[in-house]
Amino acid sequence: MLERISYRPLDCDSLPLRLGDRAELVAALGPATEWRVREVGDGNLNLVFIVESDEGSLVVKQALPYARVVGESWPMSLDRAFFEHEALKRLGARDSGRVPDLKLFDPAQALLVMEHLTPHKVVRRALIEGEELPHLGEHLGLYLARTLFRGSDWSMPTAARKADLALFAGNVELAGITEELVFSDPFKDAPLNRYTPGLEATAQAVRADRALKIAAQEMKARFATCAETLLHGDLHTGSVMATADDTRVIDAEFALYGPMGFDVGVLLAHLWMAYFTRKAHRPDARAAARAGDQLLATAEICWRLFAAEFSRLWRTERTGILGGRDLFEDQGDAVGSEAALARHLDTVWRDALGFAGIEIHRRILGLAHVAEFEAISDLGLRAALERTALAFGRHLAVNRHDMDTVNAVNRIARSMEGR
Amino acid sequence: MLERISYRPLDCDSLPLRLGDRAELVAALGPATEWRVREVGDGNLNLVFIVESDEGSLVVKQALPYARVVGESWPMSLDRAFFEHEALKRLGARDSGRVPDLKLFDPAQALLVMEHLTPHKVVRRALIEGEELPHLGEHLGLYLARTLFRGSDWSMPTAARKADLALFAGNVELAGITEELVFSDPFKDAPLNRYTPGLEATAQAVRADRALKIAAQEMKARFATCAETLLHGDLHTGSVMATADDTRVIDAEFALYGPMGFDVGVLLAHLWMAYFTRKAHRPDARAAARAGDQLLATAEICWRLFAAEFSRLWRTERTGILGGRDLFEDQGDAVGSEAALARHLDTVWRDALGFAGIEIHRRILGLAHVAEFEAISDLGLRAALERTALAFGRHLAVNRHDMDTVNAVNRIARSMEGR
Repeated sequence: MLERISYRPLDCDSLPLRLGDRAELVAALGPATEWRVREVGDGNLNLVFIVESDEGSLVVKQALPYARVVGESWPMSLDRAFFEHEALKRLGARDSGRVPDLKLFDPAQALLVMEHLTPHKVVRRALIEGEELPHLGEHLGLYLARTLFRGSDWSMPTAARKADLALFAGNVELAGITEELVFSDPFKDAPLNRYTPGLEATAQAVRADRALKIAAQEMKARFATCAETLLHGDLHTGSVMATADDTRVIDAEFALYGPMGFDVGVLLAHLWMAYFTRKAHRPDARAAARAGDQLLATAEICWRLFAAEFSRLWRTERTGILGGRDLFEDQGDAVGSEAALARHLDTVWRDALGFAGIEIHRRILGLAHVAEFEAISDLGLRAALERTALAFGRHLAVNRHDMDTVNAVNRIARSMEGR
Repeated sequence: MLERISYRPLDCDSLPLRLGDRAELVAALGPATEWRVREVGDGNLNLVFIVESDEGSLVVKQALPYARVVGESWPMSLDRAFFEHEALKRLGARDSGRVPDLKLFDPAQALLVMEHLTPHKVVRRALIEGEELPHLGEHLGLYLARTLFRGSDWSMPTAARKADLALFAGNVELAGITEELVFSDPFKDAPLNRYTPGLEATAQAVRADRALKIAAQEMKARFATCAETLLHGDLHTGSVMATADDTRVIDAEFALYGPMGFDVGVLLAHLWMAYFTRKAHRPDARAAARAGDQLLATAEICWRLFAAEFSRLWRTERTGILGGRDLFEDQGDAVGSEAALARHLDTVWRDALGFAGIEIHRRILGLAHVAEFEAISDLGLRAALERTALAFGRHLAVNRHDMDTVNAVNRIARSMEGR
């Protein structure tokens, strides 16, 4: 899909030489001789540079032909830069202002230049450090509703939707990573798995847990077969940057068509993992209590705003082939349309709980862990908190049909922590 | 997708002139001067010719650039010949011998040459005429299991499966016909709808039936978003030809990725519609009773063989990313794999009932009707039988979660007829 003949990875020295003639960068930064470059990539897959001058700053993200988290032994297609660019264009159009401004895409170099978000922090880091992000739940709830609804057959012209489905079906390599690392590895003795010392018996119990594994397989089938809407595909708190007032979604290379509940559930899982680890990062008990209340409130607001905005779009923008306005409103039956909405939201909610439960498992027992747990140096404490989070995740995945509200789930989180 | 510059519809006179230089035809039929041609198309979309000589016979099927059932006012893409050819190749590979042998595909002429099935009859016609087809249920049950399993992520390499998904996403026009004519039109006052005089109140009651319309919308969403496997997409008894010993599936131009239950449910719907109309075509009560037993037995055998063969493939060919052998058998837990199988078959069954219920509605209240009903000249009798079938179809669609076995559904068919 991409022209790769001249692909070479950038570094801090070569970047100004190689990008210094690009009008988009010069317009923002001035001449390349004045650029200051630093590499800040801490993700699993890419190079990320911040390029600054006295006139401004930009971010340059370049895909590597292997998975950085593992090394050159895991080759990866550069096409993901293409899919990220296509996805960010769509997500930005569907919820204006919620992704970084895009300045330049160079397919040959698998390279994307975009707005440098500053003073934004990665949300995962901000939450660990105790920052308050009062608008986070609201912004992400609205983002989820708008992007998931507007990328679906409830909203889009069906020919455009199916063409997009076909396009993103090409992102098979990154879909395969999710299918393997998220839905399978944590539930077997996979070579890439790793976990905190002390969790051996827990990992073994997970591998013997038939109900959990059946749930994992069912959620994997939902993920692989339910081509409902364009997902971000990796919407954890490390894929969101925020200030007290602003929230931005980044890192969309895992974008693909999938079930609405996936993005919702992954995000909620990371808020709940932040909840279970907050005390370890806050010696002060009152600060920890306050942070716990805020994290659960963020999860609640996120779901409630999602449901409210999704309902608003359902009522006002149901223009696609699944709209069904012809069967309900056009026949004077607005109540039928509301009943259909309630049933759809219920499906998204059950899916979200299932995906959240699986995501928690993969972040504790699989390859890619999260700083909330990894930054806890007391391994006994870390393992104990991880066991609590796993018990919670299992409950979500296996009993997802028995929890009707986000408040009910938040209460379960509180009660499991109290045990 | 197709080169159309030189497309012209064939007729009986021009066919030997235009195809007489094709080696595939000459090899089977001898020189074109000896060919005898007749047009036999009675479907909704295409020209179909039987070309015979003393040496043999072949079928030539050519797509028309409009929908034959409506006329030139409904233009249709010729690409459907391409998708039919691609689909028949795959379906034939997945269940060997169950589709006609393909001799030639000419994309420019949207033309497919294949084996002339003889003395096969279209199954719908054979069932109306009282022929016994003792292997029909078995053959179609096996066909459904093999094609639906082997086109899915339970079986296929995922990159090939996703490439196929992308390819068939291009068959958007025919998918759109199904989405509109099957799932929407019957439940509203659509211009293309038609129905037997006397059904006005019934049609009106359907349009006011909120639970049924919600079910129709849910099944439409399953159809449009659940890209589980390559479907035939129009597997009614007019798309099957049979003798007492052989069964062949034809007419795959509606092929697309969708939920397994769709092909299963559409087929069962037509067997049940044949059941409800059998007495009208058999003055002899004992013949009608025997035909009724056989039709319900065919439905039962079809589902049972589907489930048995699907289970066999699940146990022996689960090689795709959804296989899950790594979570179950490889960890010594064959029981877990059986539990996952049972849950998957249950989903296919509920879907099949939902789709069957919707299919019955569209064949009685929508544009495209079926000969079982249309051939009943007594309009009062026809309307009465259609009302019974609609009540049965509504029960399937709305209460699909309450009927656990094909025998339970067959008993409901018998009891509804008795009312």
